[in-house]
Amino acid sequence: MGYTETKLEGRNPVIEAYRSGKTIDKLYVLDGCKDGPVRTILREARRQKTIVRFVDKERLDQMSETHHHQGVIAVAAAYDYSDVDTMLARAKEKGQAPFLFILDGIEDPHNLGAIIRTANLAGAHGVIIPKNRAVGLTATVARASAGALNYTPVAKVTNIGKTIDELKKEGLWFVCADMEGQSMYKLDLKGPVGLVIGSEGEGVSRLVRDKCDFTASIPMFGDIDSLNASVAAGVLAYEIVRQRISG
Amino acid sequence: MGYTETKLEGRNPVIEAYRSGKTIDKLYVLDGCKDGPVRTILREARRQKTIVRFVDKERLDQMSETHHHQGVIAVAAAYDYSDVDTMLARAKEKGQAPFLFILDGIEDPHNLGAIIRTANLAGAHGVIIPKNRAVGLTATVARASAGALNYTPVAKVTNIGKTIDELKKEGLWFVCADMEGQSMYKLDLKGPVGLVIGSEGEGVSRLVRDKCDFTASIPMFGDIDSLNASVAAGVLAYEIVRQRISG
Repeated sequence: MGYTETKLEGRNPVIEAYRSGKTIDKLYVLDGCKDGPVRTILREARRQKTIVRFVDKERLDQMSETHHHQGVIAVAAAYDYSDVDTMLARAKEKGQAPFLFILDGIEDPHNLGAIIRTANLAGAHGVIIPKNRAVGLTATVARASAGALNYTPVAKVTNIGKTIDELKKEGLWFVCADMEGQSMYKLDLKGPVGLVIGSEGEGVSRLVRDKCDFTASIPMFGDIDSLNASVAAGVLAYEIVRQRISG
Repeated sequence: MGYTETKLEGRNPVIEAYRSGKTIDKLYVLDGCKDGPVRTILREARRQKTIVRFVDKERLDQMSETHHHQGVIAVAAAYDYSDVDTMLARAKEKGQAPFLFILDGIEDPHNLGAIIRTANLAGAHGVIIPKNRAVGLTATVARASAGALNYTPVAKVTNIGKTIDELKKEGLWFVCADMEGQSMYKLDLKGPVGLVIGSEGEGVSRLVRDKCDFTASIPMFGDIDSLNASVAAGVLAYEIVRQRISG
């Protein structure tokens, strides 16, 4: 697959990347650096809600590959993010009811990769992740996706709740995974659906859960609290698949 | 959970561990060392089919915590292995049809931990792993199991095929995960069942597959080859759960 994270170093390359619309996953800025170009970069970062870290010179020097970072290093995904409209268009093209994964804060890159892999095989049309509070499309994610990143579009959105509202207008229903919900086997999960999976530690955030139409639980018979997040996503996704197949 | 892998160093501690019946996951022996006590240890290792590695002095010195290894370091799981009879007794105690996981060579400790976690929550009575060709109960496995290792028994067996034969006499049916199989939704997976999951790269070995009564596939609609092994195990396990619940 040949994925490598792209590092952009120096003021002009970073400014150009922002102006060309490239998604920057993370921005490292020399602490205390406040001249004109750096202020321009920080303004762009704020506008695109990039995660910004202020670090000392030693740290930047260590990260630098070119050794001309001029106080600024941006990390961009080599895999380009897609958008929600592209996912809906794909579903339409295939004559299928849209089936999207919404990941509300998955932090472990292995889990994110495994979930993208599952989304691909379960026939989902895309995976939506939040811009903040979550891992991006790093090299580890690409590896764990076993190639699925080349096929299944991933979109990064600023506000999951707002995206859910917009998708509801397109006719999607939303089901969120939560232990307090109704058994997934008792819910009707057919039709255009968004499957919402929470973060490993916290589950689905309250705001996002309140937007969902159903809360589905996976029946559990054991002694511990919860399944691994990517396993839970797989089990729920395949209950949706089963119901879709059985008509 | 406080799991740490136990290292046993020196000839007497290792001989005593073998004689007390402790399961040694791996044995490191100084290459070329052939005196009486070391020969005794190697004989025990052969009898218990421990994986033995012959290494040079530098390697042993690096591994050593006591700096008195005398040419022998054994690595034992702090979690004790269980056995298949205990699993069957547990099922009987609960008045349930036995439900076992058989892992034919899972190599990734994160996957093994996640699968033990799934086995616990799906209500399975135990997890069987092969003595060779597979990861043991390391600290990473314990962490990834999220505590499930404290509840769900794990047995290490010498020959998976032979164990399947013995369990068939106890009335278990075996279903193995394989892309070439029938859709899992079309199989009757109720009753006393052993779910056989193959290794990440190779799947279920031919010998083991031939012993299985059914081959179940997970329907796939994507572009890539296979699900992550722990996700596949979860999806299949929960199809068994669904069929059991629905009676």
